[in-house]
Amino acid sequence: MIIILKSETTEDQITAVTEHIASLDMKAHVSRGTFRTIVGVIGDEACIDSDQIKSFPGVSDVVRVLPPYKLASLEAHPQPSVVKVGSTKIGGGNLAMVAGPCSIESEDRMDSIANSVKSSGANILRGGAYKPRTSPYSFQGMGVDGLKILRAAGDKYDIPVVTEVTDARNLEVICEYADMLQVGARNMQNFVLLTEVGKANTPVILKRGMSATVQDLLMSAEYILAQGNQNVVLCERGIKGFDSITRNLYDIAAVAALKTLTHLPVIVDPSHATGRPDLIPPCAYAGIAAGADGVHIEVHDCPEKALSDGPQALLPPQFQETFQQLEKVAKVFGKSFS
Amino acid sequence: MIIILKSETTEDQITAVTEHIASLDMKAHVSRGTFRTIVGVIGDEACIDSDQIKSFPGVSDVVRVLPPYKLASLEAHPQPSVVKVGSTKIGGGNLAMVAGPCSIESEDRMDSIANSVKSSGANILRGGAYKPRTSPYSFQGMGVDGLKILRAAGDKYDIPVVTEVTDARNLEVICEYADMLQVGARNMQNFVLLTEVGKANTPVILKRGMSATVQDLLMSAEYILAQGNQNVVLCERGIKGFDSITRNLYDIAAVAALKTLTHLPVIVDPSHATGRPDLIPPCAYAGIAAGADGVHIEVHDCPEKALSDGPQALLPPQFQETFQQLEKVAKVFGKSFS
Amino acid sequence: MIIILKSETTEDQITAVTEHIASLDMKAHVSRGTFRTIVGVIGDEACIDSDQIKSFPGVSDVVRVLPPYKLASLEAHPQPSVVKVGSTKIGGGNLAMVAGPCSIESEDRMDSIANSVKSSGANILRGGAYKPRTSPYSFQGMGVDGLKILRAAGDKYDIPVVTEVTDARNLEVICEYADMLQVGARNMQNFVLLTEVGKANTPVILKRGMSATVQDLLMSAEYILAQGNQNVVLCERGIKGFDSITRNLYDIAAVAALKTLTHLPVIVDPSHATGRPDLIPPCAYAGIAAGADGVHIEVHDCPEKALSDGPQALLPPQFQETFQQLEKVAKVFGKSFS
Amino acid sequence: MIIILKSETTEDQITAVTEHIASLDMKAHVSRGTFRTIVGVIGDEACIDSDQIKSFPGVSDVVRVLPPYKLASLEAHPQPSVVKVGSTKIGGGNLAMVAGPCSIESEDRMDSIANSVKSSGANILRGGAYKPRTSPYSFQGMGVDGLKILRAAGDKYDIPVVTEVTDARNLEVICEYADMLQVGARNMQNFVLLTEVGKANTPVILKRGMSATVQDLLMSAEYILAQGNQNVVLCERGIKGFDSITRNLYDIAAVAALKTLTHLPVIVDPSHATGRPDLIPPCAYAGIAAGADGVHIEVHDCPEKALSDGPQALLPPQFQETFQQLEKVAKVFGKSFS
Repeated sequence: MIIILKSETTEDQITAVTEHIASLDMKAHVSRGTFRTIVGVIGDEACIDSDQIKSFPGVSDVVRVLPPYKLASLEAHPQPSVVKVGSTKIGGGNLAMVAGPCSIESEDRMDSIANSVKSSGANILRGGAYKPRTSPYSFQGMGVDGLKILRAAGDKYDIPVVTEVTDARNLEVICEYADMLQVGARNMQNFVLLTEVGKANTPVILKRGMSATVQDLLMSAEYILAQGNQNVVLCERGIKGFDSITRNLYDIAAVAALKTLTHLPVIVDPSHATGRPDLIPPCAYAGIAAGADGVHIEVHDCPEKALSDGPQALLPPQFQETFQQLEKVAKVFGKSFS
Repeated sequence: MIIILKSETTEDQITAVTEHIASLDMKAHVSRGTFRTIVGVIGDEACIDSDQIKSFPGVSDVVRVLPPYKLASLEAHPQPSVVKVGSTKIGGGNLAMVAGPCSIESEDRMDSIANSVKSSGANILRGGAYKPRTSPYSFQGMGVDGLKILRAAGDKYDIPVVTEVTDARNLEVICEYADMLQVGARNMQNFVLLTEVGKANTPVILKRGMSATVQDLLMSAEYILAQGNQNVVLCERGIKGFDSITRNLYDIAAVAALKTLTHLPVIVDPSHATGRPDLIPPCAYAGIAAGADGVHIEVHDCPEKALSDGPQALLPPQFQETFQQLEKVAKVFGKSFS
Repeated sequence: MIIILKSETTEDQITAVTEHIASLDMKAHVSRGTFRTIVGVIGDEACIDSDQIKSFPGVSDVVRVLPPYKLASLEAHPQPSVVKVGSTKIGGGNLAMVAGPCSIESEDRMDSIANSVKSSGANILRGGAYKPRTSPYSFQGMGVDGLKILRAAGDKYDIPVVTEVTDARNLEVICEYADMLQVGARNMQNFVLLTEVGKANTPVILKRGMSATVQDLLMSAEYILAQGNQNVVLCERGIKGFDSITRNLYDIAAVAALKTLTHLPVIVDPSHATGRPDLIPPCAYAGIAAGADGVHIEVHDCPEKALSDGPQALLPPQFQETFQQLEKVAKVFGKSFS
Repeated sequence: MIIILKSETTEDQITAVTEHIASLDMKAHVSRGTFRTIVGVIGDEACIDSDQIKSFPGVSDVVRVLPPYKLASLEAHPQPSVVKVGSTKIGGGNLAMVAGPCSIESEDRMDSIANSVKSSGANILRGGAYKPRTSPYSFQGMGVDGLKILRAAGDKYDIPVVTEVTDARNLEVICEYADMLQVGARNMQNFVLLTEVGKANTPVILKRGMSATVQDLLMSAEYILAQGNQNVVLCERGIKGFDSITRNLYDIAAVAALKTLTHLPVIVDPSHATGRPDLIPPCAYAGIAAGADGVHIEVHDCPEKALSDGPQALLPPQFQETFQQLEKVAKVFGKSFS
């Protein structure tokens, strides 16, 4: 950590800072420039609250040289992690293809969609039973009945299932029925939920929040990892942007940047990122080309009757065609869907 | 609601849309232009999921003409609401001055800060007992012990107290000690928490999320209102921006826009919005000038020893000076701190 | 165009609007809903200024159903345009590989870089002679001397050359030396420059501005097209974002969206988009996978001695490797570098 | 300037950096931490291109401790500048009230608007003769004929006039007719234009670009100042945001931040920032409360007939009422309209 002092800082102020550093069992190295004095901190800076240092009189800025996350960092774990969900592997050259409807709506619909996505090549089946909806008047999900339907479809077609958790109080029942959890974008900084998910023994997809930086995402992953759950898959699903031509702004460079910082697998979700079926295929291909470890696509056989998010789903034949092309792109990079 | 069809839409597709509208007990009015056909929907559009309509083949775009929130709207409640917190009133010309430390840290510190902010003019005392921190390694708050300290300070100096709720499981104990709840920006779309807060009988400050539109904020308020809790105060505290010169981007026009859409009081939080003590006073004055019903400022008597967010707090004498100027600005607009 | 009126609009206000529409030789079709009245405009809406309509008393909102650009639209020209620059073709399955240094710095350096990028597979050579720099104290480019160096390198290695134009007064001399012009992001809405470039007979790369929507970009292209220059290639080079982990925010979905709206070729510039050499290769692959018609990469043989933008350049061997992988990705999509 | 090296940096790489610093006549001070080595640069860092340093192998990050602008900085000129435009003063407690139509449309209309804004209290009259329009099919301004109309109105009502310059080739004729120039947001980084405006002897309003940081704005001001024109007034007019409820995002904290960095006057433009007449008054009050040195408001007596930007103009009586309230807010801060 480097502490940059203001030009008019007094010796007493410098001393207050260096004594504080010493009280944390670290060493302060003062360097006086022509215009500014800087203090280099020698020691494990992850233990220091940079905001606190910034509050000392005379401090102009504080620059971290090490990331504030540890368990998620590539330095701590230089080999890519491989997360196993049933027989599906994610990471280290193994790609996930997560597909299914936004919401679980009925046994028949889920059976039919599960059948089609599995036969097209999906290796994880998705479906929401607890839905975070912006309107209190919208369909909020089928709850436990939905979980049972999802489990049955997964068992029948031999494909692991993932579903979203929105409330720590439902975690136990969800873990009973699902092979993988999902923490949605709106809960990415619901630290209470992250802590509980960290105590569970079930793999989890952690979606990036709409205003989250890459570092924010890694700090949220750190919450889960710090509790003992090492099976975290990150997911880029679009951040907030100024152009309404797509629902969100698909940040493909963040995927490439994440691969330079963390050992955790990273998948992409072009359904939520774009909100437009016609843009899902090209954005899915771009995700794999940028180095993602998998793709998440919503699939529905009758989008106009979907109870949520119909406009961002592919029809089963569109999904099949997209997956075939995804396999070809993956091959260029020496990767394959497990 | 207006449904705009694609130029190549077939008659069968138009019929599918109009039959769906009819099935919802509404009337569809088809209007054929030179280039495009549009369908006007006559009826209560709040019952329609516009995403579902967008999923019909042949539909190009869907435009709502009425807001998707009802209880929060100015049309439903044309008079400004006045929220009462102890003897403090917010709204309708009555201004809130919420002040106090970011976190409750000790009995002595809280007592001293409470004494000073109350004597300077604050009419609500704040302090966090459960802290949402981006790092799992940062101080997470004192919990119930903190609540007791806050309550004691509020009682001693006769000032109502507000504190943040991050977990529905703590709601009961928080309501026991606090006069007002706060839902933080990171939980603005934690719909589970909003629903529970809506069942409580305690007034609540709902902070705008960093990627939330004004409409998103009103939809989150609607979650609380729909459960019966009518005492909601909205709070602008900065959204995500591209310039790191301030921590967040203080959206003062959103305050003015909210006053044209809702009867709920709106306050501003220049501490979180700017993250810079030197910008808090001018941004506070701007908030009142833009029509806000109150200001939220963090105050700490020793920012460099604060356990969280020291850099965004004013010192007690700075707060006193700022408040005196705020009173003068308020007077220009015929408002006063109650 | 659809005009949505406010709920309390009077008959006189409706008449004022419909008479204005009639005065423009178009038809107004009034449709009265339960809550709102809407006016459909039948005729060529590109002739109407929607801002003007919004200013009529009683008007709540105006929705365009047709795009405000014509010449750039896919409807006007359903086949993809192919832009020829010397012997290089861009569009319709032909990919551009634009490579070279940010600035032209010396004859030797340009010769060496031109030699290496051409032998690696580049089909257009870039180099800046007039540099738009944020600081008045930075290197501003070699001017005409630079143009001569660029021309000589292009001739020697038989590769067409592109260079940026920042001032209409230099246009003539630039057209004398260069095969293709570039309008940079900061000049994307310099309408004076666009108009002059539109009068030139030289193909042009138009870069997207950092705060430009996809529609803004197409409107700027329309400026050039409307003057008669049909050889416009659009370029996504990153927009403004909130995460400093990349210099700009690479909007790959915009590339896919553009392909649904326009016949003009679209290339990507991962150098400016990311500002990080390690992210250039994955983001280049993603660009082609998303449907781009080419890639723009800065290449420098000694980035630490570059007079501008060193940190976003690839070294010649890195460029060679990246290009080989790009060719494989292109093949998956049935495209090739011409 | 502080150079942070990567953890695996070699001694040779460190030497390459320090020798480069020495070659620029500055001193490098190497400090070896437990995890990272840093190099402090002692000397005038404004002469160093931080991008170039970043390109050296082994360099992780470069942190400036001094701003890259000099003439615009408060350190260089600790007293607030006062810019004089005719008899109007801007800065140092003197407030500007710039008002008038978006475009100059006719002699009668300009006369009538000039009369009304002057009598309401405006001290600078605005009107556009050269209009930067996003569509090539929109009204582009009256040119020299418009300048003559503006000049005549200014002379008749004894009020200085400001108009936009979009093309260096028109600068001479504009300076002949106008008392003050305006560089619009879209040209804020048109460095060619800034350089020419810097050579003129006429005061200038420099509007912040929609994706410009505060530092970008100051660097653009530096371009003008470096050429000798010291009469620069900065203008916040809204940046790009994600919520379409306002046209742009009014960044009031940037005004307060600018006052801590520069001696140049700063005014606000709530017309362009919000694009909504109902939000102009509260946002204007907020601007003065935040410390702005003036306000820019568009005024039109018949917005629905305006040839550009009608929806963001106030009617003359609304302007009069707004100005009266602005005077009261100004008084609270000990300022007045000159």
